[in-house]
Amino acid sequence: MRVLLVGAGGVGTAVTRIAARRDFLTHMVVADYDLARAEAAVDALGESGARFSARQVDASDREAVRRLLVDQRCDVLLNATDPRFVMPLFRAALDAGAHYLDMAMSLSAPHPSRPYEECGVKLGDEQFALARRWEQSGRLALVGMGVEPGLSDVFARYAADELFDDIEEIGIRDGANLTVEGYDFAPSFSIWTTIEECLNPPVVYEKGRGWFTTAPFSEPEVFDFPEGIGPVECVNVEHEEVLLIPRWVQARRVTFKYGLGDDFIAKLKTLHELGLDATAKVTVPGDGGPVRVSPRDVVAACLPDPAGLGDRMTGKTCAGTWVKGTRDGAAREVYLYHVVDNEWSMREYGSQAVVWQTAVNPVVALELLATGAWSGAGVLGPEALPPRPFLDLLTDYGSPWGLRDEA
Amino acid sequence: MRVLLVGAGGVGTAVTRIAARRDFLTHMVVADYDLARAEAAVDALGESGARFSARQVDASDREAVRRLLVDQRCDVLLNATDPRFVMPLFRAALDAGAHYLDMAMSLSAPHPSRPYEECGVKLGDEQFALARRWEQSGRLALVGMGVEPGLSDVFARYAADELFDDIEEIGIRDGANLTVEGYDFAPSFSIWTTIEECLNPPVVYEKGRGWFTTAPFSEPEVFDFPEGIGPVECVNVEHEEVLLIPRWVQARRVTFKYGLGDDFIAKLKTLHELGLDATAKVTVPGDGGPVRVSPRDVVAACLPDPAGLGDRMTGKTCAGTWVKGTRDGAAREVYLYHVVDNEWSMREYGSQAVVWQTAVNPVVALELLATGAWSGAGVLGPEALPPRPFLDLLTDYGSPWGLRDEA
Repeated sequence: MRVLLVGAGGVGTAVTRIAARRDFLTHMVVADYDLARAEAAVDALGESGARFSARQVDASDREAVRRLLVDQRCDVLLNATDPRFVMPLFRAALDAGAHYLDMAMSLSAPHPSRPYEECGVKLGDEQFALARRWEQSGRLALVGMGVEPGLSDVFARYAADELFDDIEEIGIRDGANLTVEGYDFAPSFSIWTTIEECLNPPVVYEKGRGWFTTAPFSEPEVFDFPEGIGPVECVNVEHEEVLLIPRWVQARRVTFKYGLGDDFIAKLKTLHELGLDATAKVTVPGDGGPVRVSPRDVVAACLPDPAGLGDRMTGKTCAGTWVKGTRDGAAREVYLYHVVDNEWSMREYGSQAVVWQTAVNPVVALELLATGAWSGAGVLGPEALPPRPFLDLLTDYGSPWGLRDEA
Repeated sequence: MRVLLVGAGGVGTAVTRIAARRDFLTHMVVADYDLARAEAAVDALGESGARFSARQVDASDREAVRRLLVDQRCDVLLNATDPRFVMPLFRAALDAGAHYLDMAMSLSAPHPSRPYEECGVKLGDEQFALARRWEQSGRLALVGMGVEPGLSDVFARYAADELFDDIEEIGIRDGANLTVEGYDFAPSFSIWTTIEECLNPPVVYEKGRGWFTTAPFSEPEVFDFPEGIGPVECVNVEHEEVLLIPRWVQARRVTFKYGLGDDFIAKLKTLHELGLDATAKVTVPGDGGPVRVSPRDVVAACLPDPAGLGDRMTGKTCAGTWVKGTRDGAAREVYLYHVVDNEWSMREYGSQAVVWQTAVNPVVALELLATGAWSGAGVLGPEALPPRPFLDLLTDYGSPWGLRDEA
């Protein structure tokens, strides 16, 4: 299998380190807007980097990406950029006749008049609008194939297939106890994406009612995370699982809650009140006269690169899927989860926990596609495919998952 | 008197409206980086604008400003820009043989190793370093001649001259009860300057010890402001009065405390934690490739222009000088203050209260220089000149000051 990886940031770099240890890969072209970043990712692989090469590409340039896919004879495009670039990359793969994987879906737009009650454009809507064309092409667009969305969706399908007869609620719950030494504030994941998820109206699914939205940070609850992380306050945020799971898994309610903590929530609210979360450009003085920039890009540029914080980071991150329902007539409640300890991921891969946890899942998925254990055509979420091969292979990657019986 | 006003923002525009009603002015050239802004200020004067003209100038271009002063035969440069432009304008006036007035002084730089204990470069240090050349030129640089610094310094000198035999402490205290309808957060004054004042280490003066710094937001106290504003929590911030007053007025301690309120303090702390208060440029994507911008400029660009908020604003702003000491052997404590009601300043001048209050003081000072009631050479603060003519003329402008006996 020949793969074009677009994006050599934290997640993309971790993808190269994980993939380099697996045999299924014939070649991976690592492409980034910043060639030096792509080269650094390849160089860091040392002798195990023989199957990797670096290229420059602008992820917003659909035609340039298509040409790169064709020239490099790539079977699949793995998108490891931020969600702004989903559509040009998704279209470029379709144009080139390549399969496509991403870890975040096309962006939402709030309802124009009732943003905290009704959905406007939903996450992934733009991608699903092209589902028919993907089906006709015989190629697979496997969307939302990181850890959340991704592994969390696999857990949902696994619960439906093997653990429950009837599901009342599926709630993704994400929490961590990571701290970063020497910084007042240092998010462990892309702040651009975090702002997007957390300040957009959270989406909730209920059977009969369909998808609807609430106010940001709604329905706070304290969730007790496993493996020593402990209780963390979680709130509703917009996330792909809520859009993906109900398409393939029967559940009466689907939610996503993120363990942000009070301090992070307060900072996000302040960014919003000051208008600094905005992506629409503002005019400010530049070196040679006025220039137009996106405030959110400036926020990201002022914070340390999350991928470079692993050495100063301590703690664990947990992604997982809480499921409530019945089995053989009895009430059942489980939490299926995956924990990564930063100390382990730094020692083993030189990647910090959050980006490593995101990156391992698309590599597992690529291997399943390479071996034929997974296959399909069209635009599919991870829950559209059999969960057991995925969970077994993830364990084989040295990163086992867990199941906690809640009741 | 011919005046070059540089800066046609909120304060500069209010200066034109106040000056247009006074006879001392022969001509005022209103110059701004954005010519349209200068023209708008002049046009808004209508028939009373005959003595005003608009010009374009880059305040950072010392030679261009010098030429404009000479070409327009201006006697004095009034600087109504933000403090970044103090030094080029101050030097341009010296080069051109013109007098100079500003409302904020040259910027400070924190002590490299002990920022919250010792001063580094102090506010105004760069200007006072050129004091000898101003003295030799026979021209006056009247620095810090707005409301705070400015009127607050005049109050300090008045207290020393007429109210006290011995002064223990002079504390500038600034507070307001202004609210802006329709905004979560809308500062009533330049956010660039507010960040600069509030996040720099606050400076305190003590006789014997000299100037020293503390941590931001130190020594909180609740000060009860007059005319219905009431109690507001005030904290130490860096301000020019602390640097100016001890040079001309005897006091054992000088402080400046700003009534910011909890919410504003929290927002400023967040901006600092996120690095968004920084002026050093960061690289972000622009329309045609990477551009370099100052995060603080982006914060300012995201907020509404304070000068345009007058119509939505309600309440009063108070600037003043609290003095504690003895008179005829008895303890005495007074608060000398100046309150502007936004409703009044909008109705009378179409300018919101905070910018109007800043703007009226340099116009009064210009009139005192024009009539010869004030004169001097060198770099002087407002407290270097006799206070009574200033306070009387301010009252004559329809904006009286008050004295509250505290004991």
